[in-house]
Amino acid sequence: MENKDEKNGEQEQVVNPWEVSAKDGGKIDYDKLIDKFGCQKLDQSSSELSHVKRVERLTGRPAHVFLRRGVFFAHRDFDDILNAYERGEKFYLYTGRGPSSEALHLGHLVPFMFTKYLQDAFKVPLVIQLTDDEKCMWKNLSVEESQRLARENAKDIIACGFDISKTFIFSDFDYVGGAFYKNMVKVAKCVTYNKVVGIFGFTGEDHIGKVSFPPVQAVPSFPTSFPHLFSGKDNLRCLIPCAIDQDPYFRMTRDVAPRIGYHKPALIESSFFPALQGESGKMSASDPNSAIYVTDSAKDIKNKINKHAFTGGQESIEKHRKYGANLEVDIPIKYLNFFLEDDAELEHIKKEYGAGHMLTGEVKKRLIEILTELVERHQRARASVTEEMVDAFMAVRPLPNMFD
Amino acid sequence: MENKDEKNGEQEQVVNPWEVSAKDGGKIDYDKLIDKFGCQKLDQSSSELSHVKRVERLTGRPAHVFLRRGVFFAHRDFDDILNAYERGEKFYLYTGRGPSSEALHLGHLVPFMFTKYLQDAFKVPLVIQLTDDEKCMWKNLSVEESQRLARENAKDIIACGFDISKTFIFSDFDYVGGAFYKNMVKVAKCVTYNKVVGIFGFTGEDHIGKVSFPPVQAVPSFPTSFPHLFSGKDNLRCLIPCAIDQDPYFRMTRDVAPRIGYHKPALIESSFFPALQGESGKMSASDPNSAIYVTDSAKDIKNKINKHAFTGGQESIEKHRKYGANLEVDIPIKYLNFFLEDDAELEHIKKEYGAGHMLTGEVKKRLIEILTELVERHQRARASVTEEMVDAFMAVRPLPNMFD
Repeated sequence: MENKDEKNGEQEQVVNPWEVSAKDGGKIDYDKLIDKFGCQKLDQSSSELSHVKRVERLTGRPAHVFLRRGVFFAHRDFDDILNAYERGEKFYLYTGRGPSSEALHLGHLVPFMFTKYLQDAFKVPLVIQLTDDEKCMWKNLSVEESQRLARENAKDIIACGFDISKTFIFSDFDYVGGAFYKNMVKVAKCVTYNKVVGIFGFTGEDHIGKVSFPPVQAVPSFPTSFPHLFSGKDNLRCLIPCAIDQDPYFRMTRDVAPRIGYHKPALIESSFFPALQGESGKMSASDPNSAIYVTDSAKDIKNKINKHAFTGGQESIEKHRKYGANLEVDIPIKYLNFFLEDDAELEHIKKEYGAGHMLTGEVKKRLIEILTELVERHQRARASVTEEMVDAFMAVRPLPNMFD
Repeated sequence: MENKDEKNGEQEQVVNPWEVSAKDGGKIDYDKLIDKFGCQKLDQSSSELSHVKRVERLTGRPAHVFLRRGVFFAHRDFDDILNAYERGEKFYLYTGRGPSSEALHLGHLVPFMFTKYLQDAFKVPLVIQLTDDEKCMWKNLSVEESQRLARENAKDIIACGFDISKTFIFSDFDYVGGAFYKNMVKVAKCVTYNKVVGIFGFTGEDHIGKVSFPPVQAVPSFPTSFPHLFSGKDNLRCLIPCAIDQDPYFRMTRDVAPRIGYHKPALIESSFFPALQGESGKMSASDPNSAIYVTDSAKDIKNKINKHAFTGGQESIEKHRKYGANLEVDIPIKYLNFFLEDDAELEHIKKEYGAGHMLTGEVKKRLIEILTELVERHQRARASVTEEMVDAFMAVRPLPNMFD
């Protein structure tokens, strides 16, 4: 939807909630994105004052792989959250998902895996918004189908292991109303049409549902939207872990927050999980071979990685032994960077593969092992999620032990 | 908000939900309005097939003064409602109020008095929407103040005598959500931004709350928005009695209805109750002397009519006896046309006053009697409306006897 800047026929990179595409089919330039969006780079250095080190000190746990390896790489006001936490103030986490498809792929799991880590490490409550209204409007799904997908997706989310005593999952179609709706109106009053055009690139031919939606995604940032959870805690801070394409919503939210008496939500933002075909954007739900799905069998995973993963290996074994692999473009290495937790092993593979001592097939074999284990573990967890558990996570209820 | 058509410096008439002003300060041209909006004129002739006669035959009651004297003068698909009713199909009524001020004036009572008549005559249920969200956004009231005004206004509405076994009153801030919100999304999906600009004249500097609101006023037209009332009655027809300035909302609603599987709501539309100063528009809440309020004392009413009512009487008794009054511009006559029920007496007054036999002071005296009685009756009724009654009318509940 965002206007594309075209200069001399070049296609500039486009990143917004509906489209992620790099300049001229290359890689996303994340530094440029930070610059354009106006967020900050996370400090992942070994300095005692870096974000990574502070998180480790404050929580007494090692930083998550996604944090120490720069998967989550940008933030807004994350220092404020850490400073407040250091003073003994709690916060809550807010993340979400637009339920547009039945099966999640690995990229979809990334924010949830990281959010679970944050919940466990900081011992804080979490609200998860399923924007079935958004998908009904953008993907032209029926209300019923959007709600069905929301519930199916909730099962995958629950399978990530969230603590039911600290987690409230809600679908917009079920939950919008009351205090939540009042906050939507308060937000909407503060945002002009020109402003949302500037942020989201809507046009006059877009339907008004799109124009009405940003406040829906904004208001879970405010504790009063959840009176059953945060009654009397109007000043509770909110931290939003999400992929950076969601930043426009929260830029808008942060503009409005102080005008209606709330803290600006803080953000911790991830890069995109690359497609099997290469790192030029997000994976595409319309091409099943562009991603590993949590529903894929061991055989699917093996086939997809062996057949479709773009690698930096050389075209012949001789050349590979001589020049080594180009790790910069190699998808198996990028995937291992997300999911191989052992730092030493990862370094070893990168070194050997980069030097041409290790072959592409060997790296792929290790990746297949890791992903198969991850996906099968997820499938077992999901199979044990009952309808009653979904009801329980989605019940509008107080969470008396949410800060324990 | 609507763009004013300016030709040769002339100010064309403007009628929309936020502004009513006649061409060059003259009278509203209702025929032109019917033409512009594309609604139909109500047939108030003595023909057996006229709307007035059909209503009388179908309900076994004389037509309401507002119907037989053309206060309600326009419609959309009112014939469909009458044809269906004749076949034994019921319908429901939907009207509403934007709670922008504490005290209602007589003009505000007009749709409610007429709606009560329709409810009693057709024995049908009624939903009354209090758009506290709208007023919060347009008048920049706080959420709390809008809700307080909604509740105060509900007391005046209840004082009009609605049947609690057939009437559900709701405030948007309380009620938006669930099936109602789902219908809002369905409507919003069908309306482009360009379309609402064409209908309502929004500009890019308007906030997105305004753009989001039309679906909120639209969806009470659909029975599924009220599952506690109309479950299993998805095809129930809706008739909306309202002032004609609300027509733009329902033009939009009628466009969308068949695309999302509902009947188009039918409308029966009134002209505006004129200001004391003359018939150039609606009364102004900002000028207390432009209207009789339901909170006015007998003394207020007497003073306002004697001092501020614009009349068609001549400047001297001699001239008046000679030329008679100009009834076309005379506000006391117009007010009597609304509230003096006795046709014979009204005809007598018009004849005598028009011929100069009756003086302005005598007509005003009769009007003061009638309005004082009306207002005092309303005040007694309102004083007997308890908080418990408001809660009862606004309770989300089934109405098992709503068609009895």
